Amino acid sequence: METMLRKREDKIAIIGAGTIGLSFAALHLLKHPTCSIAIYDTRPDVHDYVAEYMSKTLAGAGVDIDSTMQRLRISAYLQEAVLDAVIVQEQGPENLDFKITTWAEIERYAPKTALFWSSTSGIPASQQSRNMQDKTRLLVVHPYNPPHIMPLLEVVPSPRTSQAVIDETLEYWRGIGRTPVVIKKECTGFVANRLAFALFREACSLVTQGVIDVKDLDEVVQNSMGPRWTVAGPFKSYHAGGGDGGLKSFLNKIGGTVQQCWDASEKDVKKGSIAVGEDWQIEVCRQTDEAYGVVDTRERDTRTRSVLEAVSCEEEVQ
Amino acid sequence: METMLRKREDKIAIIGAGTIGLSFAALHLLKHPTCSIAIYDTRPDVHDYVAEYMSKTLAGAGVDIDSTMQRLRISAYLQEAVLDAVIVQEQGPENLDFKITTWAEIERYAPKTALFWSSTSGIPASQQSRNMQDKTRLLVVHPYNPPHIMPLLEVVPSPRTSQAVIDETLEYWRGIGRTPVVIKKECTGFVANRLAFALFREACSLVTQGVIDVKDLDEVVQNSMGPRWTVAGPFKSYHAGGGDGGLKSFLNKIGGTVQQCWDASEKDVKKGSIAVGEDWQIEVCRQTDEAYGVVDTRERDTRTRSVLEAVSCEEEVQ
Repeated sequence: METMLRKREDKIAIIGAGTIGLSFAALHLLKHPTCSIAIYDTRPDVHDYVAEYMSKTLAGAGVDIDSTMQRLRISAYLQEAVLDAVIVQEQGPENLDFKITTWAEIERYAPKTALFWSSTSGIPASQQSRNMQDKTRLLVVHPYNPPHIMPLLEVVPSPRTSQAVIDETLEYWRGIGRTPVVIKKECTGFVANRLAFALFREACSLVTQGVIDVKDLDEVVQNSMGPRWTVAGPFKSYHAGGGDGGLKSFLNKIGGTVQQCWDASEKDVKKGSIAVGEDWQIEVCRQTDEAYGVVDTRERDTRTRSVLEAVSCEEEVQ
Repeated sequence: METMLRKREDKIAIIGAGTIGLSFAALHLLKHPTCSIAIYDTRPDVHDYVAEYMSKTLAGAGVDIDSTMQRLRISAYLQEAVLDAVIVQEQGPENLDFKITTWAEIERYAPKTALFWSSTSGIPASQQSRNMQDKTRLLVVHPYNPPHIMPLLEVVPSPRTSQAVIDETLEYWRGIGRTPVVIKKECTGFVANRLAFALFREACSLVTQGVIDVKDLDEVVQNSMGPRWTVAGPFKSYHAGGGDGGLKSFLNKIGGTVQQCWDASEKDVKKGSIAVGEDWQIEVCRQTDEAYGVVDTRERDTRTRSVLEAVSCEEEVQ
């Protein structure tokens, strides 16, 4: 894939120009300075929408917006968009039939060597590839939003995806400084959302029990787990917490407390009926609205970038 | 409490010289330059232990170690340690009887105006204060380890704790740049551990199901939730994810996926018997050992400090 990064005319086709597709387009343009982007989307205002998103997102990234935008074209036809592409990245509707049809069509028109990536947050490649001739070519590359800021990419092959396709996918992302992680089994929600939603359920439960309010709970996370887990994930953190004996020693020493918390969580989730659509949502949403109004995501992204720079500088120093 | 910070001879008594107690001692010495610290602990090697910990922890903090250490004394008697103290901070064994006895004794010898804080991770102030004359004085101030690095302090009053004591406690911590958060109800594990352990259980479950291995799971968190939640906690994040409609809109749009993840989590936790002491621990601990050996906590702390500086600089800019 290094050869891919050196080639002048690497064309990346972005199928579906929602915010995730355009964030990926911006990422490729910024990190892979010789690529070109072809965007395919059927929305009628696609030209205006892309221009507006890109000028906002590229502003302040230290690039010349005009010359960067010259590397981006909008195609009216899928066939045209994927022609000569080295990568086809799909962010269409989360609808299995759409994806099955679209991949079969893409396979017909794209080069035999092109990589096929779906950004789906839940529909496994093994289902999407149903009507493809060569099912070894497709895998899921699930971002953490927005991908032009967040380094994580969950790479989820189907049981049929070839190792060569996985390897080339990892190489591309590592080559532009991202952090792809292979998920070993297709599973509900993949990993990042499963973890985040588990904590989120507990958060909703604690607010519903009246233990803490929404804004203070966010403060708790921002001043403890957030920074800690930026530097060392949960296993490494608790392993360090156990001293020389590591995680085993941690679980021996405070396992009782851990289990008490798990038991209390189960009880409270049940008591508060913390399922989507139940009554607890009213108060939690009310508090969140009151606390934040409309969030300035530009400010959030600027600060996130600083945090990521801080932790990656430190890595280089070590 | 501003007056407290200006007084030359504010004495803070640290009861129990484990790593939490000494980390608090270092924090007070560094952030409150006119305070003095009295440490009480019955361990026979207390002098050597304190000297070793402090020289390691103060090194590189940009202070003169000798003059800083002159503000710290070790007392052989509880009575002497708490005499004239403005704050008494307890980090003794997590044993209810010990705490009940100790607080009754502290109350006998400390000034009437001293603040009483327990660093317990689980024993509520309402139980610890059982034999105190004035139960309005005690509350829990639970740190996120190590407190000389991490900004969060969970302030957990008992139903008897007076508002004045809560207010003075918050003022002290805010005055030295920390982030105290009031927990509204005494509950199992307070908030930070409840949240972190909920995600940790899901992490153990996903590793046990063979979806991902320990080291990759940590990579996922370090490159997604970690930096995101450093900048915006879970409610603010999902509120932003919902666009102008906020959290309500987020739950309307992707609530189905959230619920599917919650259901899958429950099923997998059951299937893997993810309770403390069960078989899953063997493989999870093995992978963690293999991935990390003994963690260099000094490196972790240096990097955490950089992340915290990055996010707080950005706050000032806004």
